[in-house]
Amino acid sequence: MKVNGVYTRSIWRCDASFSPSPTSETTSRAVAVVDQSVLPHAWRTRTLKTLEDAAQAIRTMQVRGAPLIGATAAYGVALALEGLGSEEKSKAALAQALDVLNATRPTAVNLAWALERMRAALLPLPASARADAAWREADAIADEDVAQNHAIGEHGLELLRGLHTSSSRLRLMTHCNAGWLATVDRGTALAPVYAAFESGMDVHVLVSETRPRNQGLLTAWELSQQGISHELIADNAAGFLLARGEVDAVIVGADRIAANADVANKIGTWMKALAAKAAGVPFYVAAPRSTFDLSCPNGAAISIEERSGDELRLVLGTAKNATQPMAHVRICPPQTPVRNPAFDITPADYVTALICERGVAPASPAGIARLYPEFAHASPSNTPRR
Amino acid sequence: MKVNGVYTRSIWRCDASFSPSPTSETTSRAVAVVDQSVLPHAWRTRTLKTLEDAAQAIRTMQVRGAPLIGATAAYGVALALEGLGSEEKSKAALAQALDVLNATRPTAVNLAWALERMRAALLPLPASARADAAWREADAIADEDVAQNHAIGEHGLELLRGLHTSSSRLRLMTHCNAGWLATVDRGTALAPVYAAFESGMDVHVLVSETRPRNQGLLTAWELSQQGISHELIADNAAGFLLARGEVDAVIVGADRIAANADVANKIGTWMKALAAKAAGVPFYVAAPRSTFDLSCPNGAAISIEERSGDELRLVLGTAKNATQPMAHVRICPPQTPVRNPAFDITPADYVTALICERGVAPASPAGIARLYPEFAHASPSNTPRR
Repeated sequence: MKVNGVYTRSIWRCDASFSPSPTSETTSRAVAVVDQSVLPHAWRTRTLKTLEDAAQAIRTMQVRGAPLIGATAAYGVALALEGLGSEEKSKAALAQALDVLNATRPTAVNLAWALERMRAALLPLPASARADAAWREADAIADEDVAQNHAIGEHGLELLRGLHTSSSRLRLMTHCNAGWLATVDRGTALAPVYAAFESGMDVHVLVSETRPRNQGLLTAWELSQQGISHELIADNAAGFLLARGEVDAVIVGADRIAANADVANKIGTWMKALAAKAAGVPFYVAAPRSTFDLSCPNGAAISIEERSGDELRLVLGTAKNATQPMAHVRICPPQTPVRNPAFDITPADYVTALICERGVAPASPAGIARLYPEFAHASPSNTPRR
Repeated sequence: MKVNGVYTRSIWRCDASFSPSPTSETTSRAVAVVDQSVLPHAWRTRTLKTLEDAAQAIRTMQVRGAPLIGATAAYGVALALEGLGSEEKSKAALAQALDVLNATRPTAVNLAWALERMRAALLPLPASARADAAWREADAIADEDVAQNHAIGEHGLELLRGLHTSSSRLRLMTHCNAGWLATVDRGTALAPVYAAFESGMDVHVLVSETRPRNQGLLTAWELSQQGISHELIADNAAGFLLARGEVDAVIVGADRIAANADVANKIGTWMKALAAKAAGVPFYVAAPRSTFDLSCPNGAAISIEERSGDELRLVLGTAKNATQPMAHVRICPPQTPVRNPAFDITPADYVTALICERGVAPASPAGIARLYPEFAHASPSNTPRR
């Protein structure tokens, strides 16, 4: 998507010795990412040169969003294998990279999926071929993500065209950021929004702030960069606006979808699904194949990450007069006890449909099987390990 | 309740010529309030000396919470009548005070109720007696609020004692601040919490932040001042914690309760009620008689205040290093479009019971009639005008 009018992905190959630039050659042996922890307050890119750079970028949420975490982890493996010619060293480095990256975030399954795909592609190769192959495989994961998201956008657009809306404008609600920043490009939940906008529809998006990390601000920023009408709301306002008939559909992304189609996604998704159902508004989950975890029978089996209480206690922003640099303020004393679960589970019953790169299907085992028949005869390479 | 160990109300009579002190004589002709717009970051009190002082304190939410707004408005009327001996001037001042104060906030019915009570008490009196009577009536409104809240606490405590809890501790969830700061003392939703704590029960309270104004921070501060165990959560986390069985009951306050028992309360209440019902957790609304508006048939007829988008865009806190004074940060560009409804409607079906000063009753017209039979033969003095 565009940033200040220039086409940009959220992760790209760059030269380790130079400052990152979106136009760098894909043969470069480092990657650049957008530091999303300072958006929308500042535009900063960061070069990842080592395994630890990649792991730390994921852990600190400089990169976030399930599909982007997967792509970043794949590049992390490539970075870990650079310059390791001996079989022993290369194998050990691969095993270590998989372990370190797998431990960075527990909930998004795309991470485990991408790492498993890297392992399966690289382990059979001779050590001398592994590093090059790792870069190729990581590039493929990134490029496939973009293609999948375009397809999600097209299928979602068809769905949106079929909605009976009470106003001439299509009024959507989303949660968190499942836009291009959460993926390599285009987004999952926002892909249908971009497709609808580009097709000339009058689209308006209600964007929930998404406390405690405020990723809704990334969504508002993304939409403003593309010129799409939107309004920011407190997470608390979603139920009221749904109940008052101000929303035609809710579309969110997912961090993991279980075999029964229960959906793990950013904390707060579940209450939006409840409010959408109470209001009779369709609630869609947009995600690619890599978000499905058929080894996980249902939502209760999904491990939910609890993050630091300071994510709630500290709020990042720019000073009110806008001349000062970014600053954190404490909204409560440092000793205030905090619970901070990062994700919640939306039971499949509350999901009107899944929007995937292969089409739209009911949120059920049968719906998943229709889109992805290959899951039925799963091998390690298409059912990610946990 | 206590602040740094000293008993303090949220509003008290003080001498206009001196700085406010909770120990001032009740014959003083001004009132002091706690500036809640800077809590928990600073403890500041403010003296209200004129009608405009009172109106402005309500409008800017230095005082907030439906019962406290009512008491502050009553004192505002008293301030407006000070020193007006002539019938003509006194009558005009009364009419003006009622108009100005009534326009400060649209949703809390206690405001209209308190003003109607002041009008009915003062209008029949000769001008020379009105000012003294206004102070007496405002004092009575404040004192009755405290007594009512104590009674709400006792009835709520009985209810809580009857809950079947899965752990030895009683785990409650609340929203916004319906504590002593929202009332003259003791609180509505928090009154049962205080009663339970004082009776020796092991109480733990999950406190939702309550964006955009973060009144949950007031609740966390109140509870910490009384030494009651609590944890702050993002509003988004409420549904997850309810679904995971971590809450025995939800108790919230109300800004207006309609004739059919639909409840207007702080934005976000509705999604908590939905999540409580889905989890099979009781959802209680605690409120005194003055919160009922029988002239309002149902929630759809309640006017919902939309407030400035800057309430969402700007966040108040202390600097991270805690040596700096309070500061606002902008969490998004000033031009980001915002929707900011301040309240929502929880349909009566989702309310397990009403906890009032006269007892506990079902959230239904019959339940309301049982507690307040006088509403059935309403006159202007017991059904507030809108």
